[in-house]
Amino acid sequence: MRSAVPKLTLVGAGPGDAELLTLKGVRVLEQADAVLYDDLANRSLLAYAPAHAHRYYVGKRAGQPSTPQTVINELIVELAHEVGHVVRLKGGDSFVFGRGYEEIDYARRHGLICDIVPGISSCIAVPASQGIPVTSRGVSESFWVITGTTRSGELSSDLPLAAQSNATVVVLMGLSKLTELCQLYRQFGRDHLPMAVIQNGTRPDERCVVGQVWNMPQLVAEQGVGAPAVLIVGEVVALHPAYVTEYALGLMQAC
Amino acid sequence: MRSAVPKLTLVGAGPGDAELLTLKGVRVLEQADAVLYDDLANRSLLAYAPAHAHRYYVGKRAGQPSTPQTVINELIVELAHEVGHVVRLKGGDSFVFGRGYEEIDYARRHGLICDIVPGISSCIAVPASQGIPVTSRGVSESFWVITGTTRSGELSSDLPLAAQSNATVVVLMGLSKLTELCQLYRQFGRDHLPMAVIQNGTRPDERCVVGQVWNMPQLVAEQGVGAPAVLIVGEVVALHPAYVTEYALGLMQAC
Repeated sequence: MRSAVPKLTLVGAGPGDAELLTLKGVRVLEQADAVLYDDLANRSLLAYAPAHAHRYYVGKRAGQPSTPQTVINELIVELAHEVGHVVRLKGGDSFVFGRGYEEIDYARRHGLICDIVPGISSCIAVPASQGIPVTSRGVSESFWVITGTTRSGELSSDLPLAAQSNATVVVLMGLSKLTELCQLYRQFGRDHLPMAVIQNGTRPDERCVVGQVWNMPQLVAEQGVGAPAVLIVGEVVALHPAYVTEYALGLMQAC
Repeated sequence: MRSAVPKLTLVGAGPGDAELLTLKGVRVLEQADAVLYDDLANRSLLAYAPAHAHRYYVGKRAGQPSTPQTVINELIVELAHEVGHVVRLKGGDSFVFGRGYEEIDYARRHGLICDIVPGISSCIAVPASQGIPVTSRGVSESFWVITGTTRSGELSSDLPLAAQSNATVVVLMGLSKLTELCQLYRQFGRDHLPMAVIQNGTRPDERCVVGQVWNMPQLVAEQGVGAPAVLIVGEVVALHPAYVTEYALGLMQAC
């Protein structure tokens, strides 16, 4: 039975592993009349939606033709008025560089009831998948999560301060800016900090390169690591087993 | 049937709402031979564990007698050798100020196989529960998550830099340091930033106070808001409906 009330629920799909969806996410998908999904959401999650619910791909994969945000916003509103409950399934969490607020705001202004189901964010779970805690007592009291993809296309203006801080720095969607990022740390004399780059975190094809800031661009190129990737810089990366056992000997390690 | 292999799995229980556990968290709890849980984990989640699995409370609620971390570490190892699979159910995510790495590290050194199931962290999900995104295009390109409870008992040394940054600042376990925190922002002439304090986020008794840094200690005292609470400072807080509709008129608003 279709819902009569036009409604939008943002559901965070988590970082990739289909089992990292929440129970609430499952329940909401089961009540969907339409689902809009993008590249980073695990497609197997679409199976939770009822048969009658149409699935719409609205991905924005870097370098490929993408669905403009305005089109997504309009599609959500049109669908909700037509079929009822629209579920927007987004990789990670909708409120971490997910433009979730823009969708909620537009939908509310067009008469939709809106709700949010948080998702497991890559910024914490992907390092954890490699055994790296974003904070650890005696090592780091904070972590700073920054987008690698700004509107201007430039490195985020928050990064120069981040590179000088004691925070663990996590950069999402930043692989294309890796060289610039590492140069920034070098400018502040901090390019011997431990660093990791993790591709496809929590998925079966997860790959990780552990090293230091100064040699990370070379390691990533040698290993052919690509997007989507999470970058993490800080002393907590030294807790990674490969760093502890191998890097101390001056070896570069892919894991 | 009990597992013969001594094993520890850290499971992030999420911020409070029992439906914010992941599917993987449920599966792991169903395979537990013993469960150690603390205050912030929703107790209804214990029902997923089999009848034979003993439940151990190892809470550390502020101001109450607490279970020392060394005792927890030893209990995990003893139990795993005795019964098999120990599940450590922690509020939020184990690797965000959860001392999860310490438990994993100790357990590994004592022969346990270790695994991690990430949880929904309060630092993102609790603001989201109030409609506040930690990042939003054109408003904030980053967020910085800092503990309010350091080993020394002092304000984290990361906070002075955070108070000067453009990052959304989220402080966990920091309500007892609210006045000091707000004074710090004042020192840098930034106490007119929007701020929210959210108690019991995602639970039925969730409470939220929205205002600005300068008047937040007074608002929190007037409203009687207590721990556990998430503090959030930054322009994204102005996206909260109470701020948008009421605060602009100079009113203080509890929601």
